[in-house]
Amino acid sequence: MMNNIAIFPGSFDPITLGHVSVIRRAIPLFDKIIISIGINSEKKHMFDMEQRKSWIEKIFQDEEKIIVESFTGLTVNFCKDRNARFILRGLRTAADFEFERGIGQVNKKLNPNIDTIFLLTEPEYTPISSSIVRDVIRNNGDISQMVPKEVLKDLKIA
Amino acid sequence: MMNNIAIFPGSFDPITLGHVSVIRRAIPLFDKIIISIGINSEKKHMFDMEQRKSWIEKIFQDEEKIIVESFTGLTVNFCKDRNARFILRGLRTAADFEFERGIGQVNKKLNPNIDTIFLLTEPEYTPISSSIVRDVIRNNGDISQMVPKEVLKDLKIA
Amino acid sequence: MMNNIAIFPGSFDPITLGHVSVIRRAIPLFDKIIISIGINSEKKHMFDMEQRKSWIEKIFQDEEKIIVESFTGLTVNFCKDRNARFILRGLRTAADFEFERGIGQVNKKLNPNIDTIFLLTEPEYTPISSSIVRDVIRNNGDISQMVPKEVLKDLKIA
Amino acid sequence: MMNNIAIFPGSFDPITLGHVSVIRRAIPLFDKIIISIGINSEKKHMFDMEQRKSWIEKIFQDEEKIIVESFTGLTVNFCKDRNARFILRGLRTAADFEFERGIGQVNKKLNPNIDTIFLLTEPEYTPISSSIVRDVIRNNGDISQMVPKEVLKDLKIA
Amino acid sequence: MMNNIAIFPGSFDPITLGHVSVIRRAIPLFDKIIISIGINSEKKHMFDMEQRKSWIEKIFQDEEKIIVESFTGLTVNFCKDRNARFILRGLRTAADFEFERGIGQVNKKLNPNIDTIFLLTEPEYTPISSSIVRDVIRNNGDISQMVPKEVLKDLKIA
Amino acid sequence: MMNNIAIFPGSFDPITLGHVSVIRRAIPLFDKIIISIGINSEKKHMFDMEQRKSWIEKIFQDEEKIIVESFTGLTVNFCKDRNARFILRGLRTAADFEFERGIGQVNKKLNPNIDTIFLLTEPEYTPISSSIVRDVIRNNGDISQMVPKEVLKDLKIA
Repeated sequence: MMNNIAIFPGSFDPITLGHVSVIRRAIPLFDKIIISIGINSEKKHMFDMEQRKSWIEKIFQDEEKIIVESFTGLTVNFCKDRNARFILRGLRTAADFEFERGIGQVNKKLNPNIDTIFLLTEPEYTPISSSIVRDVIRNNGDISQMVPKEVLKDLKIA
Repeated sequence: MMNNIAIFPGSFDPITLGHVSVIRRAIPLFDKIIISIGINSEKKHMFDMEQRKSWIEKIFQDEEKIIVESFTGLTVNFCKDRNARFILRGLRTAADFEFERGIGQVNKKLNPNIDTIFLLTEPEYTPISSSIVRDVIRNNGDISQMVPKEVLKDLKIA
Repeated sequence: MMNNIAIFPGSFDPITLGHVSVIRRAIPLFDKIIISIGINSEKKHMFDMEQRKSWIEKIFQDEEKIIVESFTGLTVNFCKDRNARFILRGLRTAADFEFERGIGQVNKKLNPNIDTIFLLTEPEYTPISSSIVRDVIRNNGDISQMVPKEVLKDLKIA
Repeated sequence: MMNNIAIFPGSFDPITLGHVSVIRRAIPLFDKIIISIGINSEKKHMFDMEQRKSWIEKIFQDEEKIIVESFTGLTVNFCKDRNARFILRGLRTAADFEFERGIGQVNKKLNPNIDTIFLLTEPEYTPISSSIVRDVIRNNGDISQMVPKEVLKDLKIA
Repeated sequence: MMNNIAIFPGSFDPITLGHVSVIRRAIPLFDKIIISIGINSEKKHMFDMEQRKSWIEKIFQDEEKIIVESFTGLTVNFCKDRNARFILRGLRTAADFEFERGIGQVNKKLNPNIDTIFLLTEPEYTPISSSIVRDVIRNNGDISQMVPKEVLKDLKIA
Repeated sequence: MMNNIAIFPGSFDPITLGHVSVIRRAIPLFDKIIISIGINSEKKHMFDMEQRKSWIEKIFQDEEKIIVESFTGLTVNFCKDRNARFILRGLRTAADFEFERGIGQVNKKLNPNIDTIFLLTEPEYTPISSSIVRDVIRNNGDISQMVPKEVLKDLKIA
């Protein structure tokens, strides 16, 4: 029997409460969700791969269906490697939607067997993105309503 | 064990190739999908409920996971009656998204346990809506690229 | 000395928590805000003018700066009659913005001295509009998170 | 030799300065532009067909390339009848664009030989639509910045 | 008695006619408007801080309510330092709106007492942004319809 | 007699099937279309100017109306140099439209005699942009549904 495996790709620099909410609500739909941290050498990150991965693992340590991996190359190729037929994404705004639709349709051209599944971000997380979080961190602002407590704890220690 | 049941609500006046594509691609995600034809006494329909229901049943007659029902009242209440935790919808355009996000967020206020799952319409079906189909029918245009053959057959006979 | 008077025009059929939030936050900007209920004989209303007006008066009975009036004709003409240089509006979505920008620019052509001031709806009220509220009422749904307690009370009695 | 003929379809109830600007700027692109007033028995009009047609004919009486006709049925069928390979439309807003893209793509499905050509509305005419003009007329407002002098003259006499 | 103080934050590299129009129309709403030039060491500027500040001071030298300052860090923190309860912004397009709504909602999370007030850009200034102006300058184009005469004068001398 | 000359400006890094479709469908509208590759020293390109130009020349070698040139500076100035009254562009999404409208309106301020003509991208090419193509190339993905065979051939050899 074929399993329903989904990839949730992203940079997670850092993971936000919006990401966490989308992933938790998607758990019943899949047998496994692979939170897939894209390695992009051209992009500068605020937090290194180990840190980003460690946060996500702590947050979902009690969820048996969730694993965390890093990957390079096209998302659809990583899907094929992992036997995943679905890509999972959250939608916040109409601008988000236009961007995600483009990516989703290109992915379908690259591999017609892979489909993207979208969930809505909760209204209170709509304005929260990783790049907003980094901007607030840089300016020493309060991110306690934006990231999970696992991220918050490490940032306060630092 | 709790099953994953989804409602796909709509008027389906008539069902389009875009609807069919979204439903077929969502089948692996759920144990059951209830295609739910809303009864709205304030809306005039081109095709009566029996006709609309009969087309959908023919199209999906070989899909065991799919059943067709009509309903009145709030979608979230029908979900609760049927034990469905998910509402399934297709997304065609940014305008669609803004509309669906509003409905999805209101539904969540009415029943926080119910979530909406979105799939993208295929690019070739993006411009096709039931209201466009009705407009083409009224003007005796060719809808063969817009609706399933089950609908087409009956319309040609008529 | 000239006063800063604003008109907040609408149908308020019924007034929502989103309307109330926008009006309350705008109070410090103006000497007077006239909540202006447009009389539109071509539109069918769920609640009659007296009911709509009465709710708004109760909600803002302790706010000295706020008065409630009905009006007919162009909003800019009512502004001129009341010596109001500003129109106040809330913005919920990008679709809202495009609509309001059109109206605001037309108003400026009709009377260049009148300007529209926009506030954002709070995220939790973004999906709430009067038309959504009416739809939920018609289907006997729960509107307790959508309208002020003054509206809720009367609807429960009824 | 095949000519470049374009259809500019619409209700023109009434024609606006925005329409006129788009049509005038498109004249060099085509051998003939047929301003095509759609007959839609389900829509109520403020001005009757003869009045709408007469205004357009007066406005463009010195433009040899422009003719005015009414039509029923699908726009693409009227194109075929008139040997027109192009549909001409103005674009005002992003909402306009989404709507026009849908119509344009459906037209292409109905007749792949027909293409839609878009021009931008001038910024000062962006908020002006026929429905806004009708609303201002109904409220006795000043439409002198919204419609051509040929329309204005008749409305003032009346 | 508490005063109504607003911050108008931006890079103003350089200030445009669109900025000036929004600020002038907002003057009646506030006791003081602080045009606040953000210092962002990661962004490259075409004009240095002194130049940008000097232009704005000249343009508004007769407006007693307007002062110009530079600031670092979060906008909401600068608001608090200056006792400002309002952030003032212009809105040009739907894309603008989506961006500004995100920023405005994040600011509200960071400090719930601060609200953003929006005015519409005049239609003729809708396409004008500082980045467009810089692009035209780089290509030796004519910016006389895009920036105030105080900016134009210095650029022509240079 | 004045000719209808159009500029189709872009980076074409590389040219896509979407570009080619828009250009081919626009040929009947103009006496000459100059595909104009902008030289932008601040932008890094994947393919050098000679390569990009050579591909376009091969694709359109049988189209007498089409020539290929590179240019620096403002597009409107290049139009004037080449006696072109029209700029030709394709429209894919609402985000595209908002961007193109801004550029088109700025161009009109810089030279009121020049107008932008838009065609819709075909639905199947809507998600394809040069930047998506470059991203797929970088990740060794299959671009055979995204670029013309002339581009594909050289990339496979390399």
